[in-house]
Amino acid sequence: MTTRSWTLLHQADNTRTDHTVITPQDLGVDGAWKIEKRTLHGGLSEGVDEIRVNNGKLTFSILPTRGMGLWKAWLGDLEIGWKSPVHGPVNPAFVNVGEPSGLGWLDGFDELLVRCGLESNGAPEFDKETGRLKYPVHGRIANRPATHVSVTVDTTTQEITVRGIVEETRFHFLKLRMVTQFSTRFNDSSLTIHDEIENFSAGPAEMQMLYHANFGLPLLDGGSRVVCPAKTVVPRNDRAASGIRTWDSFPAPEAGYEEMVYFLELYAADDGWTRTVLKNAHSTQGISLVFNKRQLPCFSLWKNTTAENDGYVTGLEPGTNFPNPRSYEGEQGRVVKIDGGKRAAFLLTLEIHPTSKDVADAEAAVHKIRAGRDAQVWDKPQPGWCS
Amino acid sequence: MTTRSWTLLHQADNTRTDHTVITPQDLGVDGAWKIEKRTLHGGLSEGVDEIRVNNGKLTFSILPTRGMGLWKAWLGDLEIGWKSPVHGPVNPAFVNVGEPSGLGWLDGFDELLVRCGLESNGAPEFDKETGRLKYPVHGRIANRPATHVSVTVDTTTQEITVRGIVEETRFHFLKLRMVTQFSTRFNDSSLTIHDEIENFSAGPAEMQMLYHANFGLPLLDGGSRVVCPAKTVVPRNDRAASGIRTWDSFPAPEAGYEEMVYFLELYAADDGWTRTVLKNAHSTQGISLVFNKRQLPCFSLWKNTTAENDGYVTGLEPGTNFPNPRSYEGEQGRVVKIDGGKRAAFLLTLEIHPTSKDVADAEAAVHKIRAGRDAQVWDKPQPGWCS
Amino acid sequence: MTTRSWTLLHQADNTRTDHTVITPQDLGVDGAWKIEKRTLHGGLSEGVDEIRVNNGKLTFSILPTRGMGLWKAWLGDLEIGWKSPVHGPVNPAFVNVGEPSGLGWLDGFDELLVRCGLESNGAPEFDKETGRLKYPVHGRIANRPATHVSVTVDTTTQEITVRGIVEETRFHFLKLRMVTQFSTRFNDSSLTIHDEIENFSAGPAEMQMLYHANFGLPLLDGGSRVVCPAKTVVPRNDRAASGIRTWDSFPAPEAGYEEMVYFLELYAADDGWTRTVLKNAHSTQGISLVFNKRQLPCFSLWKNTTAENDGYVTGLEPGTNFPNPRSYEGEQGRVVKIDGGKRAAFLLTLEIHPTSKDVADAEAAVHKIRAGRDAQVWDKPQPGWCS
Repeated sequence: MTTRSWTLLHQADNTRTDHTVITPQDLGVDGAWKIEKRTLHGGLSEGVDEIRVNNGKLTFSILPTRGMGLWKAWLGDLEIGWKSPVHGPVNPAFVNVGEPSGLGWLDGFDELLVRCGLESNGAPEFDKETGRLKYPVHGRIANRPATHVSVTVDTTTQEITVRGIVEETRFHFLKLRMVTQFSTRFNDSSLTIHDEIENFSAGPAEMQMLYHANFGLPLLDGGSRVVCPAKTVVPRNDRAASGIRTWDSFPAPEAGYEEMVYFLELYAADDGWTRTVLKNAHSTQGISLVFNKRQLPCFSLWKNTTAENDGYVTGLEPGTNFPNPRSYEGEQGRVVKIDGGKRAAFLLTLEIHPTSKDVADAEAAVHKIRAGRDAQVWDKPQPGWCS
Repeated sequence: MTTRSWTLLHQADNTRTDHTVITPQDLGVDGAWKIEKRTLHGGLSEGVDEIRVNNGKLTFSILPTRGMGLWKAWLGDLEIGWKSPVHGPVNPAFVNVGEPSGLGWLDGFDELLVRCGLESNGAPEFDKETGRLKYPVHGRIANRPATHVSVTVDTTTQEITVRGIVEETRFHFLKLRMVTQFSTRFNDSSLTIHDEIENFSAGPAEMQMLYHANFGLPLLDGGSRVVCPAKTVVPRNDRAASGIRTWDSFPAPEAGYEEMVYFLELYAADDGWTRTVLKNAHSTQGISLVFNKRQLPCFSLWKNTTAENDGYVTGLEPGTNFPNPRSYEGEQGRVVKIDGGKRAAFLLTLEIHPTSKDVADAEAAVHKIRAGRDAQVWDKPQPGWCS
Repeated sequence: MTTRSWTLLHQADNTRTDHTVITPQDLGVDGAWKIEKRTLHGGLSEGVDEIRVNNGKLTFSILPTRGMGLWKAWLGDLEIGWKSPVHGPVNPAFVNVGEPSGLGWLDGFDELLVRCGLESNGAPEFDKETGRLKYPVHGRIANRPATHVSVTVDTTTQEITVRGIVEETRFHFLKLRMVTQFSTRFNDSSLTIHDEIENFSAGPAEMQMLYHANFGLPLLDGGSRVVCPAKTVVPRNDRAASGIRTWDSFPAPEAGYEEMVYFLELYAADDGWTRTVLKNAHSTQGISLVFNKRQLPCFSLWKNTTAENDGYVTGLEPGTNFPNPRSYEGEQGRVVKIDGGKRAAFLLTLEIHPTSKDVADAEAAVHKIRAGRDAQVWDKPQPGWCS
């Protein structure tokens, strides 16, 4: 056989494996890849499911318990991710997303890539009249455990796929189901995330998605740059405006640094595909995010170059919207409407660039998309962009 | 021996069985009954305890982790319950009852029968001055794990009893302990719930209880009717008033249908016993709720005949009160006062009617209670009934 | 070897023992001591880690899952602790510290000694403008699971040490790490808690700590007294003022008794060390809290001599502050400032006095500290002391 699948977790069948290792031997073939499902124990991680995929070259860790988030990745000695002052992964049972402040989500934030949505993402929003929390920061999906997880290995296409289902539902309210697939090929240095959001209600729904991809040392260092086909750059607030001249480069860790956020529209190829590259100061290592502007028209850049212990990190964030409060984004039309029974799809590829040559190639791809077009860089927040 | 008991869970003794099966062989007798205690795994159900009782004819599922709620029941091919868009059972660790909106309870709502209480039930209530949540929708008891669970089988009386203890306590505030018993007889098609609520404080307490019994397809279908000895019927709001002429019948699933709720006083026999029947369109199958008006004077009918995927369901809800906000019900005197060290008791029997003959018998029992007396059906909300 | 250590839990290494017993045999020596790590099961205790240390004479129970709190202790037949109407220990997954009321913490309150902090302790505080919860009652540390736990036995010094690490962190906000050590000597009747709070941020932080040590029957009974070198005694409110003449003695359980709280400054020896004794009515048994006023300048006395079922208890509470709302205490300067990368240390010893002689010795130690100095006892709340 060339394809084989394993169900690792299925709530409806009362199935959950505590520990599973899948190797080429299970398919009677040779190869250096390996897939391991573990259960984490101790402290805030108690009971968290983790799936670690090693394609023979690239290793990455998926967290079914945390909405199929991507915890970390490794390419040889290069660790991709960041050092959050929150030491996770954190079981959602210990995260109070609905805390009155709307900030409880921050207690579980330490992933390389965390999805923000689905009802909403962005800054918390409060009812104008009562002052009560309406939308917690960055939404609920990252703290919902997957109800179905399976792995498929195809020795013909040389592809490993991890599929998960996460539901964000509330009786009388939203009924969304995310079917996500992480796929990678043997000995490749990239992985692709393919998310389909199904509105399984009979009525229409609105949703938001923002992929909060976070990078610290060593990809981010003093002198790192983000290279992207920027069409428009808008500082989120006066603080970000004060750093507009260096919006695309990063300083070394600095205690007390207050975050700066920029909202961008990118140029894209005719078919909508576009790319953003983060590279280190010496352009020797980097990473690309490849996505489609038709699915993810907004791009936010979060610069949080504070001290290492406080979380030296940048967020590259393709989204359906900017992370303003939900109602503001709704007024701007930056939500996705899905009819009953229909789906919306999102694709995001992470390509890791371990050499100068790879970085140069990725930059060339950005320049090709840009095609000599200029960026409009605003020196202050713009109406319609910033709440 | 004719009676034997098994302790399945006892927090104070650090006892909890992961998996236990009890069959007639354990008592050295013949019989088709079976009791199985399982632990559910995967997604939102991770760690949920379930007890499935099969009396030889009727099977039902009890959820100790969810306040000894009744998840589902089966009589041959007939499944009793409903398809909630929330796919549970949901571990309370993933339900934020205290979310500022007061609506977090909805994230765990998928049971056939869920108790609403004990401090309060009904619509969420907020402090008038500060706007802060005072009483979350339908209270806390359904999301409190049982601290003691045992099973008793008596081969002489042919009775299976599952007993559970659930506490709803807060230091400085309420100290209530619910002792519930689910009992059924070998090869019977009914089960009885006997709840005693003990106020173990030295001082007096107030409580509310509402049995939220929920039915979808196939018992509920287009043309289903509720047959009950209605004395008074009051629509909860204008929406319900608009459907008052058909308050006791149900349409087929309809996308976007907005719920209608009716508050009823029922006639009862001299000893207080009364009955409500739900039957399908062809009167070939049905279910009765049998309870005592002296314990549960209020009856609410919830019609939520929306699309199947959104939760096509009706709730038959005997209660100590109507599900208005707690303070309003208190002003109307619809709370139960329990002196320190005293108890209040509630009995509720579910009789399943698998044939036309059974349905007809149940309807006859309702008519006997009604004894030719008319119902007063109000065409708009009434003061003292509707907040 | 004379020293040996065991790691019982380490989140970062995915290590957690379900059940471990350590005895003198493990070190090849004789002795009556024993250390047992168990996992609790059933109800609200499901999954709670407990470490029970028996030094040959004194036994005490530590709860890693509840922030390394001290659950109970036993000296022969004498149980130290209290009977809370909350029947724990309660897994933090079932405690909503962030409930809008700020009172969710009360759902898990049943320990002999619970730390209140670290961001704040005391009464809940709400934003003046929006009414939203800012600081929940008594803070978060007691509901944070330890991320590292180890045990060390030194047969030379005859000391058993249980070490735990608990983090109270939120991205963008506080980054505090508590390293606690419980130590006791073979066959001794005391235990010492040594807490170091590290601010692992690069920037400065503020913290509070209050050790909420709680005692019920039999140490607390009608006629019990607290003996301490009081310099100043201030009733928290009018209710406490009404009982000021008997502030240091305790009545028998009385249904409906409303709590009284007193704020004290104590005299201390020149090196800062001071002591508070609680003794029973006949002065035959007691307990001392020994601590340093330079670390813990405030002492609060909580008298809650209500009915036994409602929690007959007194709290002896050395702290960095009084349990007023956080902002008020900040205005009075009663917070601890810790520079980035620095630590604050707190020591607290509990000495159990099983005989009249031991009680008399402890009282003599208090009198020596007092050195004949009088207490100023205020008959009403004082500005700067009471919010």
